[in-house]
Amino acid sequence: MAMRPTLQDIQQAAERIKPWVHQTPVLTSSTLNSMCDAEVFFKCENFQRGGAFKIRGATNAVFSLGEEEALKGVATHSSGNHAAALALAAGWRGIKAYVVMPENAPLVKKEAVAGYGAKITFCEPTLRGRETALAQVVNRTGAHFIHPYNDTRVISGQGTATLELCEEIPDLDVVIAPVGGGGLLSGTAIAASAARAETLVFGAEPENADDAYQSLKAGKIIPSENPETIADGLLTSLGDLTFPIIQALVRDIVRVSEEDILRAMRLIWERMKIIVEPSSAVPLGALVAHRQALPGQRIGIILSGGNVDLSTLPWDRKNRMMHE
Amino acid sequence: MAMRPTLQDIQQAAERIKPWVHQTPVLTSSTLNSMCDAEVFFKCENFQRGGAFKIRGATNAVFSLGEEEALKGVATHSSGNHAAALALAAGWRGIKAYVVMPENAPLVKKEAVAGYGAKITFCEPTLRGRETALAQVVNRTGAHFIHPYNDTRVISGQGTATLELCEEIPDLDVVIAPVGGGGLLSGTAIAASAARAETLVFGAEPENADDAYQSLKAGKIIPSENPETIADGLLTSLGDLTFPIIQALVRDIVRVSEEDILRAMRLIWERMKIIVEPSSAVPLGALVAHRQALPGQRIGIILSGGNVDLSTLPWDRKNRMMHE
Repeated sequence: MAMRPTLQDIQQAAERIKPWVHQTPVLTSSTLNSMCDAEVFFKCENFQRGGAFKIRGATNAVFSLGEEEALKGVATHSSGNHAAALALAAGWRGIKAYVVMPENAPLVKKEAVAGYGAKITFCEPTLRGRETALAQVVNRTGAHFIHPYNDTRVISGQGTATLELCEEIPDLDVVIAPVGGGGLLSGTAIAASAARAETLVFGAEPENADDAYQSLKAGKIIPSENPETIADGLLTSLGDLTFPIIQALVRDIVRVSEEDILRAMRLIWERMKIIVEPSSAVPLGALVAHRQALPGQRIGIILSGGNVDLSTLPWDRKNRMMHE
Repeated sequence: MAMRPTLQDIQQAAERIKPWVHQTPVLTSSTLNSMCDAEVFFKCENFQRGGAFKIRGATNAVFSLGEEEALKGVATHSSGNHAAALALAAGWRGIKAYVVMPENAPLVKKEAVAGYGAKITFCEPTLRGRETALAQVVNRTGAHFIHPYNDTRVISGQGTATLELCEEIPDLDVVIAPVGGGGLLSGTAIAASAARAETLVFGAEPENADDAYQSLKAGKIIPSENPETIADGLLTSLGDLTFPIIQALVRDIVRVSEEDILRAMRLIWERMKIIVEPSSAVPLGALVAHRQALPGQRIGIILSGGNVDLSTLPWDRKNRMMHE
């Protein structure tokens, strides 16, 4: 089993990816501070290259490879931001990226991944279809597999967002990150705990995809089965590398309803005037729902990404009554 | 006739409004730089308090009043961001704000102005109806009238955005601001020219409301008559105070089609992940259309505001084909 990443791994990742990724801004909103009865610091990974934090882990993994290893390229399975990020990072290193995507992935995501120059192999939209297709690609090409989250290099890369946040705002009481497969939350927990031992780290998870909550409660990994949530970046379940880190370092997992996710997303759009994807709004949804628990505290929130299809927003004319 | 504001007026305004308004960030986008073949610096007044630059001029005007003058409150006519800004600034000073609005103004704007505590008088949606209603309000209350743009204090306040931009990015070749009544463009031109004599200032205006273009060409004010444009913050025509400043200090007015405004707005949303209103997108629309004229230059753009109704976006499902 791979070693758990340390603060030093995250610091090395930060050095390694520095030439390629943005140091994203930290924004605040007096309106949201009042609403939450807290001081909230938003780390804006929606402004990151590729539109999401995923480029941090992908870039760290790609530039961690030795010359020999890198020659044959990298491969992954993902229908989302990790595939696009890996393609982008591989392009920077001048190597090939092979991506296995379900054939029913949204066109906008297929186009993004292809646009960054990846070679796409479509597969049946099942776990088995995906694994078979990936094995074939790796066998054929010799490409190095980089898992979207259950990978030490990826976790270390994702942790660099919180490393930057804690350098800029050194006295946070709480940090909240969304949790899907747990790569971001693991990196966040390692970085935040190392920066300041008193800082509590929480994961925020859709009620409809609450495998992290269930897994922590049961003491073993309990995957979500075919979860459905508007937070489509958080459908995946914890891995055997991310689960024990979260067990050790995360104070609790807060579950958020679909309605609260949508409401938080709209708050961020309307009050902060920035575009975030639904998955990014889950931590604020958790904070708003539990604000009485953290009065006056200094709270960091990782806004994980901003890749949404502007043509199909959840509050268009047809259903505006629902969310107002 | 009122005196033309100077750099010193703008510097004094900056000191006066400092406790109340945000120093907004300047953002850049490598994608947009490539698209424009230039280095573009976006001054993000969409992150400003009240969601637009208007709070700068309104706050400067409200806090310029003597104690005696201020006692009876302030009044204005506006269906947009100026009314909300004046209400907000009056609240900070603890005085009353009276706003004359056309009865057919959008509900979202009526609610915003009322929400900031202004007393609203509705009028017929004509120039005559507005002026009559305003005169009655001023006579009845003794409130001090603060024009949305044709006012030295307002122009000086609006100029503080460019003062900040030029302090942060001192070597701009070009600054582009949108032009409606000309308050923002006048303040921008005074601040930018004073900061660096070589900096060229352009105004960007909807083709469908091109009174500034027509006025500069004719050498006299030619108001737009019932203009219709998606850039609903730019419907007003130049005033006798803003026109000569623009004549003297603005290099040219660039007209932008409705289609180019929409396309630029969508670029800003999708590439920069920030929310701007259509009026804010007019300068980028001008730059994209004329990018071959300014190769490799350092260009400042004022993003004037971010107040849009998220339920009725111009690219929702029904007409998505139009803009893709």
